[in-house]
Amino acid sequence: MQITVLAGGVGGAKFLRGVRAACPGDEVTAIVNTGDDVTLHGLRITPDLDSVMYTLADANDLERGWGRAGESWRIQDELKAYGAEPSWFNLGDLDIATHLVRTRMLDAGYPLSDVVAALCTRWHTGIRLLPMTDERCETHVIVDLDGGRRAIHFQEWWVKHRAGLPAHGFVQIGLDDARPAPGVLEAIATADAVLIAPSNPVVSIGTVLGVPGIREAIAATPGRVVGVSPIIDGAPVRGMADVCLPAIGVEVSAEGVGRHYGARADGGGLLDTWLIHKSDTADVPGVDVRAVPLLMTDDEASAAMVREALR
Amino acid sequence: MQITVLAGGVGGAKFLRGVRAACPGDEVTAIVNTGDDVTLHGLRITPDLDSVMYTLADANDLERGWGRAGESWRIQDELKAYGAEPSWFNLGDLDIATHLVRTRMLDAGYPLSDVVAALCTRWHTGIRLLPMTDERCETHVIVDLDGGRRAIHFQEWWVKHRAGLPAHGFVQIGLDDARPAPGVLEAIATADAVLIAPSNPVVSIGTVLGVPGIREAIAATPGRVVGVSPIIDGAPVRGMADVCLPAIGVEVSAEGVGRHYGARADGGGLLDTWLIHKSDTADVPGVDVRAVPLLMTDDEASAAMVREALR
Repeated sequence: MQITVLAGGVGGAKFLRGVRAACPGDEVTAIVNTGDDVTLHGLRITPDLDSVMYTLADANDLERGWGRAGESWRIQDELKAYGAEPSWFNLGDLDIATHLVRTRMLDAGYPLSDVVAALCTRWHTGIRLLPMTDERCETHVIVDLDGGRRAIHFQEWWVKHRAGLPAHGFVQIGLDDARPAPGVLEAIATADAVLIAPSNPVVSIGTVLGVPGIREAIAATPGRVVGVSPIIDGAPVRGMADVCLPAIGVEVSAEGVGRHYGARADGGGLLDTWLIHKSDTADVPGVDVRAVPLLMTDDEASAAMVREALR
Repeated sequence: MQITVLAGGVGGAKFLRGVRAACPGDEVTAIVNTGDDVTLHGLRITPDLDSVMYTLADANDLERGWGRAGESWRIQDELKAYGAEPSWFNLGDLDIATHLVRTRMLDAGYPLSDVVAALCTRWHTGIRLLPMTDERCETHVIVDLDGGRRAIHFQEWWVKHRAGLPAHGFVQIGLDDARPAPGVLEAIATADAVLIAPSNPVVSIGTVLGVPGIREAIAATPGRVVGVSPIIDGAPVRGMADVCLPAIGVEVSAEGVGRHYGARADGGGLLDTWLIHKSDTADVPGVDVRAVPLLMTDDEASAAMVREALR
């Protein structure tokens, strides 16, 4: 079987571990959000791709929830001692090595998808990782800051301000002109199932869906399209979907997100099936809504959830 | 008093500590070799400038003899795990932070001399450091390798091959067209004394002298020009001058190097005074040769040597 997953970072990574556990022998492709990407200190950083890569390789830090296990922060302290800005982004030493290899390959002219493939040869992810696009495309957040309305980079909003500044909207710079990375449209067109991970519907899944051609490919795929709600009991399981959804006028509920994604049967939507947590209810016209356990407490729980999605 | 020093890396750094100790209140400028500079993993690395900067700031590792005290090597291990080449160059974690700041500033268009000044605001060197040139200019070594005669980067010869491949010559790529960095010619022209540190006469001092205009400035300066022999009892105190000097046809002796530098009085040479170790003898026509203790065992010994040089 061929399974294609749309995913963001940490939540997407957990979900992908579940897919891998549930589907041994199947061909799994993850199309990962790159809208969170940023260049800092001359390093090109792809947080979602790295979260997925490290997590699939058992190299992620479980306690902190992001980044590498056994990470240290010596270089970051040095950069601060030099007064190098910005100093609010957490750059681990081990992580910097990944960024150095990536930046060097990008500077040499390799597309990001080739860089991801090269990095993954070390990590044995067991799942093919594709960036949604090879082109630079960065999410900015419209906020009120320093007495005016401004667009700041997603990472500045997310990390520096801890999403504490009310978001009036999101602008994905470069997205309208981005092309899907090689293999992305094919992976959707030939999939037996397209799964939408329980990642942030706005700044992760929403950004992937904003790459011209991806939404159309999902509409046209013969495979079943199954979404998994990131909202349980009216709140995101992780991340900050609760501050992102209102900014685009979507209710923070499993039903709200399900309706936002919409029914494929209607022509304009995405979903054939919408998985919500067993304690939730949702009415999404034209979509087969199923209430099942959605908590990804461990790989087995995630895998059980994926088996429900694929049933 | 105004003192200007031509210097290489580790030996030059020790000497400069002596100058600083011997000349409190004086204005000291170091013109530092950049021919050893190299770009690796996308990082611009300036080994001699860093050796001088760290050593003057008491931030150098005394036991290893180069690099930062308290250094670690996590990123280098990661780069090896990714298969990123080359893997023979030692890149410390703390050092990489310096390289990141430097590379970012260079990429933004700042000249190296501005970058050095910016880095030094953190380190409080007490001596003004100037790169010999802002332009890229890298020493290559002519060797027999893989069945043919080739030019390899100085660092590849020095670090990877530990200077074990016989050098048939040195080629400083870019040197003929390099211009002295801002302040270099002025620092020589207005100096009360120009000191030539006991650094490698070929790949450190020789490279500095190869920047068009520097040799002429030394010939014309009203200040006294005093060289310090890096060779004691027929061998270099540190480094590998003994394998560099024969490649350019110079005898490995205090006399050989003194004659190589030559007398300013003759028109073509550099020296007014040549300091050799107390146990050595040297006949350098036209030059005031003085035998004094030259071992830089500690700052006080180095300072005593500098006081002899300035007497």
